[in-house]
Amino acid sequence: MPHELKELNEECGLFGVWGNPHAAAITHLGLHTLQHRGQEGAGIVGLTPAGLRRHYGLGLLSEVFTKPEDIAELAGPAALGHVRYATAGGRLLENIQPLLFRFSTEAMALAHNGNLTNARSLRRDLENDGAIFHTTSDTEVLMHLLRRSPAATFTGQLIDALNQVHGGFAFELLTEHGLYAAVDPNGFRPLVLGTLPDGGTVICSETAALDAVGADFVRDIQPGELVSVTANGVTTQQYTTNTTLSVCSMEFIYFARPDSQIHGVNVHQARLAMGRRLAQEQPADADIVVGVPNSSLSAALGYARESGISYDLGLVKSQYVARTFIQPTQALREAAVKRKLSAVRAVVEGKSVALVDDSIVRGTTSKQLVRLLKNAGAKAVHLRIASPPLRFPCFYGIDIQSTRELMAANHSISEMRDILGADSLGFLSTEALEESVNLDPTAPHRGLCVAYFTGEYPTPLYDYSAELQKELALLHIKVSEVSA
Amino acid sequence: MPHELKELNEECGLFGVWGNPHAAAITHLGLHTLQHRGQEGAGIVGLTPAGLRRHYGLGLLSEVFTKPEDIAELAGPAALGHVRYATAGGRLLENIQPLLFRFSTEAMALAHNGNLTNARSLRRDLENDGAIFHTTSDTEVLMHLLRRSPAATFTGQLIDALNQVHGGFAFELLTEHGLYAAVDPNGFRPLVLGTLPDGGTVICSETAALDAVGADFVRDIQPGELVSVTANGVTTQQYTTNTTLSVCSMEFIYFARPDSQIHGVNVHQARLAMGRRLAQEQPADADIVVGVPNSSLSAALGYARESGISYDLGLVKSQYVARTFIQPTQALREAAVKRKLSAVRAVVEGKSVALVDDSIVRGTTSKQLVRLLKNAGAKAVHLRIASPPLRFPCFYGIDIQSTRELMAANHSISEMRDILGADSLGFLSTEALEESVNLDPTAPHRGLCVAYFTGEYPTPLYDYSAELQKELALLHIKVSEVSA
Amino acid sequence: MPHELKELNEECGLFGVWGNPHAAAITHLGLHTLQHRGQEGAGIVGLTPAGLRRHYGLGLLSEVFTKPEDIAELAGPAALGHVRYATAGGRLLENIQPLLFRFSTEAMALAHNGNLTNARSLRRDLENDGAIFHTTSDTEVLMHLLRRSPAATFTGQLIDALNQVHGGFAFELLTEHGLYAAVDPNGFRPLVLGTLPDGGTVICSETAALDAVGADFVRDIQPGELVSVTANGVTTQQYTTNTTLSVCSMEFIYFARPDSQIHGVNVHQARLAMGRRLAQEQPADADIVVGVPNSSLSAALGYARESGISYDLGLVKSQYVARTFIQPTQALREAAVKRKLSAVRAVVEGKSVALVDDSIVRGTTSKQLVRLLKNAGAKAVHLRIASPPLRFPCFYGIDIQSTRELMAANHSISEMRDILGADSLGFLSTEALEESVNLDPTAPHRGLCVAYFTGEYPTPLYDYSAELQKELALLHIKVSEVSA
Amino acid sequence: MPHELKELNEECGLFGVWGNPHAAAITHLGLHTLQHRGQEGAGIVGLTPAGLRRHYGLGLLSEVFTKPEDIAELAGPAALGHVRYATAGGRLLENIQPLLFRFSTEAMALAHNGNLTNARSLRRDLENDGAIFHTTSDTEVLMHLLRRSPAATFTGQLIDALNQVHGGFAFELLTEHGLYAAVDPNGFRPLVLGTLPDGGTVICSETAALDAVGADFVRDIQPGELVSVTANGVTTQQYTTNTTLSVCSMEFIYFARPDSQIHGVNVHQARLAMGRRLAQEQPADADIVVGVPNSSLSAALGYARESGISYDLGLVKSQYVARTFIQPTQALREAAVKRKLSAVRAVVEGKSVALVDDSIVRGTTSKQLVRLLKNAGAKAVHLRIASPPLRFPCFYGIDIQSTRELMAANHSISEMRDILGADSLGFLSTEALEESVNLDPTAPHRGLCVAYFTGEYPTPLYDYSAELQKELALLHIKVSEVSA
Repeated sequence: MPHELKELNEECGLFGVWGNPHAAAITHLGLHTLQHRGQEGAGIVGLTPAGLRRHYGLGLLSEVFTKPEDIAELAGPAALGHVRYATAGGRLLENIQPLLFRFSTEAMALAHNGNLTNARSLRRDLENDGAIFHTTSDTEVLMHLLRRSPAATFTGQLIDALNQVHGGFAFELLTEHGLYAAVDPNGFRPLVLGTLPDGGTVICSETAALDAVGADFVRDIQPGELVSVTANGVTTQQYTTNTTLSVCSMEFIYFARPDSQIHGVNVHQARLAMGRRLAQEQPADADIVVGVPNSSLSAALGYARESGISYDLGLVKSQYVARTFIQPTQALREAAVKRKLSAVRAVVEGKSVALVDDSIVRGTTSKQLVRLLKNAGAKAVHLRIASPPLRFPCFYGIDIQSTRELMAANHSISEMRDILGADSLGFLSTEALEESVNLDPTAPHRGLCVAYFTGEYPTPLYDYSAELQKELALLHIKVSEVSA
Repeated sequence: MPHELKELNEECGLFGVWGNPHAAAITHLGLHTLQHRGQEGAGIVGLTPAGLRRHYGLGLLSEVFTKPEDIAELAGPAALGHVRYATAGGRLLENIQPLLFRFSTEAMALAHNGNLTNARSLRRDLENDGAIFHTTSDTEVLMHLLRRSPAATFTGQLIDALNQVHGGFAFELLTEHGLYAAVDPNGFRPLVLGTLPDGGTVICSETAALDAVGADFVRDIQPGELVSVTANGVTTQQYTTNTTLSVCSMEFIYFARPDSQIHGVNVHQARLAMGRRLAQEQPADADIVVGVPNSSLSAALGYARESGISYDLGLVKSQYVARTFIQPTQALREAAVKRKLSAVRAVVEGKSVALVDDSIVRGTTSKQLVRLLKNAGAKAVHLRIASPPLRFPCFYGIDIQSTRELMAANHSISEMRDILGADSLGFLSTEALEESVNLDPTAPHRGLCVAYFTGEYPTPLYDYSAELQKELALLHIKVSEVSA
Repeated sequence: MPHELKELNEECGLFGVWGNPHAAAITHLGLHTLQHRGQEGAGIVGLTPAGLRRHYGLGLLSEVFTKPEDIAELAGPAALGHVRYATAGGRLLENIQPLLFRFSTEAMALAHNGNLTNARSLRRDLENDGAIFHTTSDTEVLMHLLRRSPAATFTGQLIDALNQVHGGFAFELLTEHGLYAAVDPNGFRPLVLGTLPDGGTVICSETAALDAVGADFVRDIQPGELVSVTANGVTTQQYTTNTTLSVCSMEFIYFARPDSQIHGVNVHQARLAMGRRLAQEQPADADIVVGVPNSSLSAALGYARESGISYDLGLVKSQYVARTFIQPTQALREAAVKRKLSAVRAVVEGKSVALVDDSIVRGTTSKQLVRLLKNAGAKAVHLRIASPPLRFPCFYGIDIQSTRELMAANHSISEMRDILGADSLGFLSTEALEESVNLDPTAPHRGLCVAYFTGEYPTPLYDYSAELQKELALLHIKVSEVSA
Repeated sequence: MPHELKELNEECGLFGVWGNPHAAAITHLGLHTLQHRGQEGAGIVGLTPAGLRRHYGLGLLSEVFTKPEDIAELAGPAALGHVRYATAGGRLLENIQPLLFRFSTEAMALAHNGNLTNARSLRRDLENDGAIFHTTSDTEVLMHLLRRSPAATFTGQLIDALNQVHGGFAFELLTEHGLYAAVDPNGFRPLVLGTLPDGGTVICSETAALDAVGADFVRDIQPGELVSVTANGVTTQQYTTNTTLSVCSMEFIYFARPDSQIHGVNVHQARLAMGRRLAQEQPADADIVVGVPNSSLSAALGYARESGISYDLGLVKSQYVARTFIQPTQALREAAVKRKLSAVRAVVEGKSVALVDDSIVRGTTSKQLVRLLKNAGAKAVHLRIASPPLRFPCFYGIDIQSTRELMAANHSISEMRDILGADSLGFLSTEALEESVNLDPTAPHRGLCVAYFTGEYPTPLYDYSAELQKELALLHIKVSEVSA
């Protein structure tokens, strides 16, 4: 589960229900379990007797849904919900999803997790042909393609549209007649299918959200698959058969909840395995192993078990969201950071600590944590990262916008160690990561996308192709040095 | 650190600063670290150029202080802050502390953590003599006593007042001339003294709050002590020498942060020791040890270390505050509970689990947790409680209002095991608790108050005496059976 | 100026500025003066260094713009503002104007006052051709037509679009390159042009808003005219020459501010004239003349002057908006109405009162006013209405949705008198109304639209044609009786 | 009814109900009609089955009571409400009334309109005797005196307390046993008694509020009278017989609603009479008479009737509360003022205008109005004020805090005329004011307090005595010049 200190952000969480009289209440419950996937906006569209109705807003679910009526007004047999991470330039209410389209003859709600690599060029073409967009998000492109498709049936139009968009995506679309869900041909973004004991189908981003509402897990939606849930039941078809499994590895490393399963692999256990492999590859001469709460505790436990070093709780995480105002002095600015994480002096004082974290993005947090432990008396801090160095941007739905912001893209490991103030620094290898998760031994990278570590993108990059080349050119020497 | 599922509540957290130009900002930072001690109201009084000014409200700190001006308007060389737990009948804005008294000639702010055992009779007497109270809280009594004292000096009046109130208390009082702090003769409620590197004195409820603002710990305020911080520095005196150390044991078991020290003992390490002793006294035939996040993780780790059973992360706690609306079905009501805690099926499935929790109050949460683990496939759940059975009310500042609500006061351990659905149930003994903390080997109960477990109250109960007798009479047979 | 009791609603007020560094602040000021034209939503789009930015929301201006930053963030050389009346089914945030369109290459803001009579069929056609609408309002149609126009220039596209829409409209459109304004071929809805002393052009709904910001009145925008304001100055052209002046007579009777001028006629003086003619056509044997505050005071004064009967202030209007909760008893429900208007007993007691009101829609308010005066002791109440009976719906921008709701469409005047409880009832004739305003002696109805009184609509009704026929058929007998 | 431009402020409005099941809803309705007496805070205490409960807050009634539950939670057979004007330094939530006192054995609510002249010294004495005050308002003094009274009965204690406070006051006090109301020995502040047709007694500030809730007027509460309303009915007694009627003349001139009666005199008709006398004393060579809406319309009408000059509506007042942000230019700052009042050019252009206003305080508004009319083309503006020049502070409940702020205390009439830019300026004489109202021909000043005009205070000034002397000394020469 991501903590607030991390500079990475997932783009979204989805939760749809069809065929249960409490659809909106179930969706609201389910979205709470997906809150970690997006904290800057939330919305639910309910299929009510008066048609599709929407309640949405900026902020956390608890800020957007503040009274029982907010859910009650959405009551009916189906609902679609969304939690969103909004990029800096895009904190616009218009972008909050599900998008609700009101046509003269019907209405549709559309929710999306991911990033389309050819959205900009599609949009330009559509606008040149008279289309009017109302949001700045990718998502709307799909609806324009669908509405302009010459296909004879609704699913025909949807398949037509899905074959024109590229990148990483999980879509859910709710009409008065059905709930439709589709995943990109690489399965970058997860989506799972479940059934409710008292009737109805759920399609959502993580299995933990199925558990949360008491739904039974049925199966993962497959790459290139379109699932249709209507009065006639659940039907499936491949909108394309040109597929390769490349699940985003950051789901396992950092984003997904430890109690979720992705394509059959439990996230907590994948992290335990990463921790074990990390201990093998990057041993440390330490007295105790301390994980960064909460997302790195699993890897830390794996590290401790494999290394035989004692696992201890040397960092405490506040469970309260703290408003951060600008502080008047440097000392107070540093203190403000500690409201989120603090060290247990009685645990770390005089100890050599193996500090296990899941990843390093800009390095700011890691630097603060090392200092925090040393100020609390740690004799040494050996920083161990349960994933490989992040060097390349993601174009499939994670907010790593530029290599210039990635510490590992700009510095060698020894430089990083010095900047972070650690006594030693070690990363997990890409191979060990792939083997720890081991989604599909026969697929490239065992079914994972590891592009942020290796620069090998599993698909063409379309609109982003040129800008990636430019960035890489700027970093040329350092990148090659690191990969050596 | 208490989690939201617990039915117990601390009454308050205090944070006062004297002699630093950023007193209000420091107090705001410090209170964040004490937020677990009170979530229903918060306030800060600042000593500004325009005199004492207050900002306060119902809710969390982040709800009460929403913009930089809320702090800026309190800027000056001293401040006093408070976070409050308000009992059911008392969610009144008037009761939010610090109380601010505006006299014709001066102003004073008063903040309190604890419960006075003779407040009702004192109030009745004062009202009969014409006094007007504006809150329903105990705290105001002290100010009336102070203002009516015939003593010649301010500290004389304060000592006079302190000697008339009984029970558990930590007071802080801010005037334009000084910051005053006092602890009850038993030291039931903690209060510590620290200094800021850039000048100034801090007096607050826990050492973790000193760490949070970069202050250095100086010492614990002692039972019966009155500390005065003025332009002349820090002075101390005993307002009474009739003292016995009886620190509230629930501070170690559940309330205080793991990174705090109380009278020299680190809370995390005390919990580790309780877990170890629990493993000795109440061994379990289990495959894994799972702690209830977050307050029981330390004890669980101690249990695992001592027993040699593998420690694992079988429960996941949501880090988001979830609004709970009334759910339409029983299934959804149960699901709503799971938004806070959920089980990791991949960890517990097919396993015999030793589930370590810190305490049992009403038993509702424990029952849900046992069911959660069993639903996730646990073969057996051996519930181990790192404290003795709670059977008696507290009158010194913890919200255990009635023995009728305490599961252990009404049921034998085997009855409890059956009701909770656990395969076995074991509690820590009072002796082991006392030895695990071991505050002062020479003091009764080694310096702890264990009255909620034994019924032996370290002081007379004054206004509560009769009602306790009545309650005990009602429970007579069951109580004696349990104590046998 | 309309008061809250009236069941009629104007659709909107517009205010645009081009070429003044304080454009957003001026627009905010100007909209305050147009607040009576729409109280359910407000928005301003500013042309800022970062492009077009929008601040908008549901409610009054003072509820939508709550802090200086709300205006400051829109600062730049141009702005477009809108106040909106939202019909019952349409209180959607998406419908609040100006609509902001963000294209890949540019952005545009569009604001509209009026109603298009062929919007439904245009929308249906556009959707069939793949267009996606995001609001339920008419306004968006114009933008789709514009974007799909094959014309070579922007104004060419705009002229193309304007020639396809029918009905009553005043549009303002803001781009980064200019401010464009157009009025329908009948000039149903007003729009005026002004200049600011310190530079810049203003185009807004009423001259009172020019006065409010210190702008000088230049001229009324003419029927069929398109005005373009760009870096090259103000240019004008007729997008159609097929025009006839038919200004909505309700602007003079009720909507517009008394201090506004429409096509050269001052609203207050037009009302004075209506009052004088009413006194001639419908004399009353009364002791005093009382107007309904505030919109009927002018007509009442005219009535008093012509009749020689003493003008007095017999009704007091509260200046505070009162929240109306459901009241527990019938007496309190009636009392709740009186919070808005109350009678001055000392004025009306024992008097025969000529009560002058501007119009009767459903009759509910009139009935309450008659009872209010009688309860306060009035000997007789002679109700005099300074406009003809409202019998037909409006399709050009006023919310008279159905003849079934119009009292005068369903009852003879003597029936109305009895229902309202008045001692006599008299209306102004259509001819007298036309002569009182006398916009253009050579135009049909002297330049006014009087369709709501006569059923003679000055244009084809397109999408509304069939529904009007159906309504009239239902009311056939009564309508003919009344017109006889 | 006061408008927002006026710099004078009434201190409060009171509304109490005893013996009606809808007491809280009635009080809420009634307070709306008293909103003009205080706009900065509001509160209602209801006698509920759970005892006295309060809902209160800063702002207008519509801001404080925002949902039906706010009233519903106060439901029961009695209620007491208050609207408050808070002085600059006193916008504290603690000061919002009714004050609610929760004693161990009972609760009481206290509401007050007026100002006590010996509150400061009483408070100092009480504090020296140990009393603790929780507000900075006068009101609390009465409760301390009551609680400390040695009298045997509750009404005995209340009479004891009432005889110790001096100044202008109307008190209402609600207990679980009765509603008590008292007026100062001069009747400075009004209070009236009424009965509800469906049972129950109302005591409130103005008769218009009786009308608003459908209550029948019974009588004015007399100077020195204490009314007790209990289960035994309404009883009355004089707490002092040392009384003289001196009703605040500003109630007639400006504060009270035109539809209220005070001691038998209708406010609108008193203003008509003032206008007539003003026309006799200060004739003007004018074409039209224009009143400043809304409070001066009655006087303007009287002026027009007496002078024979035509009454017209030359100023329009906005009915919307406008938020005033700081404007970027001088032109916009002036424009911002016009959002409240604007001139009708078509009425005033080329005319000589007799502008009738009720009073001049600082003169800022008058100056703006003169300019507004001249900018709209008025040939001349003859300013006529329907009250004498305000030269002295009020200590009985109106916020005229200092003579330094009063234009007429610092300037001769000819100086004022020049500063205001008027062509002539004339005030009503004190004698004509007294005769226009004519409350009691046998009482000094015919039953009015005219101290702000003459400096003759009808009572000793106690705590304010010295400060008045100091102020007058500062202004010595000018004051004598003006009175000459």
